[in-house]
Amino acid sequence: MVEKLWQGRFEKPTNRAVEKFTASIEIDTRLYPYDIMGSIAHTKMLGKQGILSEDEVKLIVRNLKRIKKELDEGTFVFHEGDEDIHMAIERSLIERIGEVGGKLHTGRSRNDQIALDERLFLREEVKNICSLLEELKSSLLRKAKEEIHTVMPGYTHLQRAQPVLLSHYFLAYWEMLDRDENRMKDCLKRINVMPLGSAALAGTGIPLDRKYTARILRFPVLSKNSMDAVADRDFLIEFISASSLLMMHLSRFCEDLIIWNSGEFSFVAIDDAFATGSSIMPQKKNPDVAELIRGKTARIYGNLIALLTLLKGLPMTYNRDLQEDKVPLFDTVDQVKSSLSILTPLIDNLSFQRDRLREAAMEGFSTATDLAEYLVKKGISFRAAHHIAGKIVAYCLKNNKTLFTLTLKEYRNFHEAFDEDILDYVKLENAINVRKTIGGTAGERVLERIKEIEELSKSENKGD
Amino acid sequence: MVEKLWQGRFEKPTNRAVEKFTASIEIDTRLYPYDIMGSIAHTKMLGKQGILSEDEVKLIVRNLKRIKKELDEGTFVFHEGDEDIHMAIERSLIERIGEVGGKLHTGRSRNDQIALDERLFLREEVKNICSLLEELKSSLLRKAKEEIHTVMPGYTHLQRAQPVLLSHYFLAYWEMLDRDENRMKDCLKRINVMPLGSAALAGTGIPLDRKYTARILRFPVLSKNSMDAVADRDFLIEFISASSLLMMHLSRFCEDLIIWNSGEFSFVAIDDAFATGSSIMPQKKNPDVAELIRGKTARIYGNLIALLTLLKGLPMTYNRDLQEDKVPLFDTVDQVKSSLSILTPLIDNLSFQRDRLREAAMEGFSTATDLAEYLVKKGISFRAAHHIAGKIVAYCLKNNKTLFTLTLKEYRNFHEAFDEDILDYVKLENAINVRKTIGGTAGERVLERIKEIEELSKSENKGD
Amino acid sequence: MVEKLWQGRFEKPTNRAVEKFTASIEIDTRLYPYDIMGSIAHTKMLGKQGILSEDEVKLIVRNLKRIKKELDEGTFVFHEGDEDIHMAIERSLIERIGEVGGKLHTGRSRNDQIALDERLFLREEVKNICSLLEELKSSLLRKAKEEIHTVMPGYTHLQRAQPVLLSHYFLAYWEMLDRDENRMKDCLKRINVMPLGSAALAGTGIPLDRKYTARILRFPVLSKNSMDAVADRDFLIEFISASSLLMMHLSRFCEDLIIWNSGEFSFVAIDDAFATGSSIMPQKKNPDVAELIRGKTARIYGNLIALLTLLKGLPMTYNRDLQEDKVPLFDTVDQVKSSLSILTPLIDNLSFQRDRLREAAMEGFSTATDLAEYLVKKGISFRAAHHIAGKIVAYCLKNNKTLFTLTLKEYRNFHEAFDEDILDYVKLENAINVRKTIGGTAGERVLERIKEIEELSKSENKGD
Amino acid sequence: MVEKLWQGRFEKPTNRAVEKFTASIEIDTRLYPYDIMGSIAHTKMLGKQGILSEDEVKLIVRNLKRIKKELDEGTFVFHEGDEDIHMAIERSLIERIGEVGGKLHTGRSRNDQIALDERLFLREEVKNICSLLEELKSSLLRKAKEEIHTVMPGYTHLQRAQPVLLSHYFLAYWEMLDRDENRMKDCLKRINVMPLGSAALAGTGIPLDRKYTARILRFPVLSKNSMDAVADRDFLIEFISASSLLMMHLSRFCEDLIIWNSGEFSFVAIDDAFATGSSIMPQKKNPDVAELIRGKTARIYGNLIALLTLLKGLPMTYNRDLQEDKVPLFDTVDQVKSSLSILTPLIDNLSFQRDRLREAAMEGFSTATDLAEYLVKKGISFRAAHHIAGKIVAYCLKNNKTLFTLTLKEYRNFHEAFDEDILDYVKLENAINVRKTIGGTAGERVLERIKEIEELSKSENKGD
Repeated sequence: MVEKLWQGRFEKPTNRAVEKFTASIEIDTRLYPYDIMGSIAHTKMLGKQGILSEDEVKLIVRNLKRIKKELDEGTFVFHEGDEDIHMAIERSLIERIGEVGGKLHTGRSRNDQIALDERLFLREEVKNICSLLEELKSSLLRKAKEEIHTVMPGYTHLQRAQPVLLSHYFLAYWEMLDRDENRMKDCLKRINVMPLGSAALAGTGIPLDRKYTARILRFPVLSKNSMDAVADRDFLIEFISASSLLMMHLSRFCEDLIIWNSGEFSFVAIDDAFATGSSIMPQKKNPDVAELIRGKTARIYGNLIALLTLLKGLPMTYNRDLQEDKVPLFDTVDQVKSSLSILTPLIDNLSFQRDRLREAAMEGFSTATDLAEYLVKKGISFRAAHHIAGKIVAYCLKNNKTLFTLTLKEYRNFHEAFDEDILDYVKLENAINVRKTIGGTAGERVLERIKEIEELSKSENKGD
Repeated sequence: MVEKLWQGRFEKPTNRAVEKFTASIEIDTRLYPYDIMGSIAHTKMLGKQGILSEDEVKLIVRNLKRIKKELDEGTFVFHEGDEDIHMAIERSLIERIGEVGGKLHTGRSRNDQIALDERLFLREEVKNICSLLEELKSSLLRKAKEEIHTVMPGYTHLQRAQPVLLSHYFLAYWEMLDRDENRMKDCLKRINVMPLGSAALAGTGIPLDRKYTARILRFPVLSKNSMDAVADRDFLIEFISASSLLMMHLSRFCEDLIIWNSGEFSFVAIDDAFATGSSIMPQKKNPDVAELIRGKTARIYGNLIALLTLLKGLPMTYNRDLQEDKVPLFDTVDQVKSSLSILTPLIDNLSFQRDRLREAAMEGFSTATDLAEYLVKKGISFRAAHHIAGKIVAYCLKNNKTLFTLTLKEYRNFHEAFDEDILDYVKLENAINVRKTIGGTAGERVLERIKEIEELSKSENKGD
Repeated sequence: MVEKLWQGRFEKPTNRAVEKFTASIEIDTRLYPYDIMGSIAHTKMLGKQGILSEDEVKLIVRNLKRIKKELDEGTFVFHEGDEDIHMAIERSLIERIGEVGGKLHTGRSRNDQIALDERLFLREEVKNICSLLEELKSSLLRKAKEEIHTVMPGYTHLQRAQPVLLSHYFLAYWEMLDRDENRMKDCLKRINVMPLGSAALAGTGIPLDRKYTARILRFPVLSKNSMDAVADRDFLIEFISASSLLMMHLSRFCEDLIIWNSGEFSFVAIDDAFATGSSIMPQKKNPDVAELIRGKTARIYGNLIALLTLLKGLPMTYNRDLQEDKVPLFDTVDQVKSSLSILTPLIDNLSFQRDRLREAAMEGFSTATDLAEYLVKKGISFRAAHHIAGKIVAYCLKNNKTLFTLTLKEYRNFHEAFDEDILDYVKLENAINVRKTIGGTAGERVLERIKEIEELSKSENKGD
Repeated sequence: MVEKLWQGRFEKPTNRAVEKFTASIEIDTRLYPYDIMGSIAHTKMLGKQGILSEDEVKLIVRNLKRIKKELDEGTFVFHEGDEDIHMAIERSLIERIGEVGGKLHTGRSRNDQIALDERLFLREEVKNICSLLEELKSSLLRKAKEEIHTVMPGYTHLQRAQPVLLSHYFLAYWEMLDRDENRMKDCLKRINVMPLGSAALAGTGIPLDRKYTARILRFPVLSKNSMDAVADRDFLIEFISASSLLMMHLSRFCEDLIIWNSGEFSFVAIDDAFATGSSIMPQKKNPDVAELIRGKTARIYGNLIALLTLLKGLPMTYNRDLQEDKVPLFDTVDQVKSSLSILTPLIDNLSFQRDRLREAAMEGFSTATDLAEYLVKKGISFRAAHHIAGKIVAYCLKNNKTLFTLTLKEYRNFHEAFDEDILDYVKLENAINVRKTIGGTAGERVLERIKEIEELSKSENKGD
């Protein structure tokens, strides 16, 4: 057995079962590119400060790069007893270049090293997630443009409420995802902070130049307190919180999709390539992707609660409990990315049954509110108008009629304010067109918003 | 029984038990100031648009203000059958001024109304929470200044690790709370959005001027999509997420306090006025406040998971499930505010046992890292130096010595690089003073940070 | 200000804000009947042991009963400074009978007292919940009997899968709730344990007869370890876990109900008395009760996570954090009881659209599995048969046919094993009738299960 | 690409990304021993029913065993496109024996198959966990016997409260773990139910003998409703709930251990083999195992909330979301088992600093309650006695005395009832010995309980 790098003070070697129980190497190996990136920056800074000679810097950097290459290619040899990726890399470095390798860890602790690795990792992944969000938003926008003339029933309580444009529906999700992206970007500000140089918890007596390291690693700011820097996992929790909201939005979209894809709704057809079959029922074509995304939402919530609970009541500063942060972190990143990635082409391949959507909007008295608003425009108070409209609906239900088939005479039986124009007023197109308030479903408003979004996106792309 | 305002279409009255089960009036009454504020703004806008006459506006506004006064004074009479605060107010208005009162709800639905109320409420409460955070941060800063010369052991794994200034410890919490405040402010951007005018879900055919309403209510932006506006509770979840992090920070501080207040640690004395006794054990003086804050953290996590789970997989747009958002929201606001409020004076009244803290820092070989760093400065690689220091610690343990009592000769037995100056180098003050990296615990660094914070705070106050 | 009963050791009175922050009186007053019940039993036991005289016992018991009566009637006067219900009652007792009242707390601590109160409270409430579960199960059974001939599509992935009896569907929920009841009863075993006599944490030197107290309070067993007894809240968590599962079941039923109640499904009509309307849309009749139950499920989950998190990592034994157990406990009891209570009459008042259900079962090729099973019976392997059935479905989709309208000739085009009897075999009734495996949906099986349940219930009622 | 077994009805192959997203093979491969065990039982039953010939049964069983052997040995070849372990095995079987292999799935669906696999898996794992619990309980019992004379301070609020035997402390955890074991066994009743034969959701027209299958697989009962059987995941949630409580108990023990292992407490030494060091601080010996178990508790809570949230509001019956049940299930099993496994030897290797524990019990006025109880025995009311004891503590604090150093004269200054015997009465041993109530910490009581447990355990072992 290889001796631990911290074995000096111990009289007995670690129990094998304890070694296995405490090791994180199976999980944190994934961080190696960031760990090596951080070590190279640290080495260069030690060089600049004269703590390492130029030759030592070159030797270490060259060998770190080799280790990275081996890890990339899967040829790196792990040892039994490698506790974590940091120790595995340092151990390997020392094996390659001897004593000089032992200088890498100067002025550094695993406590600030892991904080750095996680920040480098998450900074990149949050950017990836933002790109995926951009793609999904684009897909929603495309659908919004495609379905600008599609009328459907808008729902509250899963009851047909008022007609809306399918386009308007897609833009609602655009808004949600846009907030998600903004939350991710706010979170990024707090991820993008350089902790290295905090050492174990108190800073170090080795004269490091933290600003120089930060510059190499492109961090705009430094952590301001060494104790906080090694104890802090806020940035992970904030990220998983933002991810929970994001997944919640996806779960709502997926719920709609699953319901709309039922035989009874038949609003949408999922492409064969995006559905799967049953091992027993030959006729089945199931919306599995949507169901899985809905299901994965629960998993992200679990990750959030795991991490929050982990941190609750932990005494300052670093405690080994923090090692348990990686499973929820990595799982969240993976599930969010795969969910976003698959949803974009799924949406692109949806076919909406426009006639069926329109037909559904025709049912359920979805323009009864317009009936009331018509009366309001004639000077009736809204409450009275609402009551009259309710009575008309009850009358239709009893006599098996709809607002579209009532005669003017029948309308006038309920109130004399009804005029000829009521017959057009309750029609679907009118009900849509009149909703011209900002954010409303009227076609012109929806088009306006589409244009705004496109211009926003153009100006953003220019800036980059 | 009074008829429901939406009774028109129904043939039977609501079952009494259903009425009770679905009512939210006991909980949402609390929102009345915001509900009335919103109704007044809506009324004025209807007046500006010519939908209400000037007299109608005056009549409605005057009576809404009367209703508010009665609610303030506890004289408002609720009716059995008042489902929620919106309906109670509208019902009362109609009783007072008849038919005209029925015009208030023109172009509005409870769906956008409750979204407005919650946003107005939370906007104010987030500002209150930020003020309380400012006070708590000031208290931490005061302590940091008071304890600038107090040396204590810094802990990792609840083991003495390295000496730090107690001042540095307090600043660590300052940093955490500062992030909390920034998160609250980021959240505020997304709370501060005007939903009114989205009506039930599709906007309205009544020609509302949403920008005018927003101006009266001091909202900088309007919601952009009516379906999203009534379905969205992101802002609540984001707030409770930020609160969860905040409470987590407080729970860590309280955990430290509880441990430090134990007889074994005896680092701190809690003022009699801030502790409580036992019903059976006459000698007890318990840190109840700290324990309760730690406990309340769990409650906030529960609120977060309740709200996230509530929203998961909800079909668009509004569903009655959303009514359940209020209990976790109100409870979070209340618990966060009371926890922040009580912690500030508690901290102000803490007495630290400086001698005991110093004594503890002397034990546990807390400067062993400095031993290693000393050797690094003599050119030994960190790994080798770490190993030697470990051996020295093991030697001390065996021979019942400390780093402060070892002789130079003994040091040199382990490595010849040790010189006379090692005897000073391992002392507590030196161990603190050498940690001059940015964010480190050296006195000059800590003072620097205190000054930075004070200047930051000055410039902020000027701006307001 | 009244002096605290534990004030002896303190030099300063408690800070007012601290008093307010730590008080639980607003919440735990609800426990008074159990607190007094426990105090009476404790008093009688102290009498039996000769620690109190007969007269003292009488005096204390009489006055405790008076206090209970005042609390029942709302005339009990609380004092500012009453920390919790235990202290309020003891304080009031002492005011009434002087020094003798101070003997009540002999050999007792609030630590074992609150554990007792919570156990007495929850024991009763779990029994109440079991009764409500019995009522709901009866309601499901009634519906199962009513709908024994109603054919509907069974769903997987919200896609029509195979025809089932609606009766079978109701019995599925019966099974779930039966498990819930069994879990509640298992939990009850661990609630029904007498903690009194554990005192603060170590037992007491006062010679209590714990068995006697247990007998008076009808506890079958005593807690076996005093430290465990005051630190243990397992029984609360186990109860909220069982409640979470129960609510989860209700949420699934409610989800089905909400979907079935949509215009598109139209499987069921909710009675006017069990639905509510919209403030803006006159035509709406919303399934609010079902939505709220679904929503309250989230709240119970929140309570569970709150309590689990509260207990995590608490040092032994009692800590003030535990005071925070009451809000989630009481809320869970209340929400579970009200949800069960309202669901029973709601189900009783559901009207199923039997024709519509049958019609839906006719669509969607729900008997395609039978097609495959038919071929299996002719000796084809299941996999091959499944494939052929899939091809037939694809053919039908392309040619706008159903399994019911295909001719024998068409069937034989896919496989020669098809005979005349296939035309009947794919019919709904046959598809139901052949599923005779235990637990299957065949009418005879379902009736058998109904009979089993009825006999089970008869034998249980006899036993009691 | 291999054609899916359900491809018949589809016109396009599944999109590669969808295939990857929906596949569970990487996760559920772990279930293969149970999947094959179930398939063999199913095959035998089909043989007994004459649905398969004797030769077919032999052929299938032999090949299933071969597949199992290959999976055991890691030589089984998976195909791209194997969605899950069920399909991988069936695909491989068909490749080996052709058409006959296609008969295995007769009267079965993946819906009842996965329910069976999970039940077989969890039944075994719960038994494993119960064995590990037995071992841990034995370890606690051993320590209780070893430390029967060790006096320590019992804590409430992390304040010394009353002296207890360390033995008593260990038995408190024995009681907790005993409840955990009972909960696991209650849960096992509901796991141990045979779902096979429920097919997709409605049962099957193939004449299966479910009782026969159950007998082969040693299930005492059958599921009673096919819809419930495929939709039910209660048993997983109940298991994770029980695991959450179990881990919560471990987390409390670990918290105590971490605190007791601090330099300030120094109550216990963790064996070198069970602790780990620091990468930077040479002196550190950290209680990592305890910290990790405390941390893993949070992860189990996350798994619980993930699974509860997954199921909330799912429509009947099976939905693809359920696939997400495996990650939390497997992780919970693994973490619970590894935590229990490591804790047993850790406890066995703890060395308690008995002098230090006694010394701590001497401090902090831990026998002040006895002072009060002494007075109660002299006829003073408890409240008055408590107050006097409080005054004496205050006097000691002021004059730097302890209850052990006060003279009789000083005692009598506070109350004349004090006699010579008070000087012995407040001693630690007396304070322990007098607490003879059942469950109390008096040595004789503790020994009694140890004996009870040992006899219980003997009678249980005999039974098996």
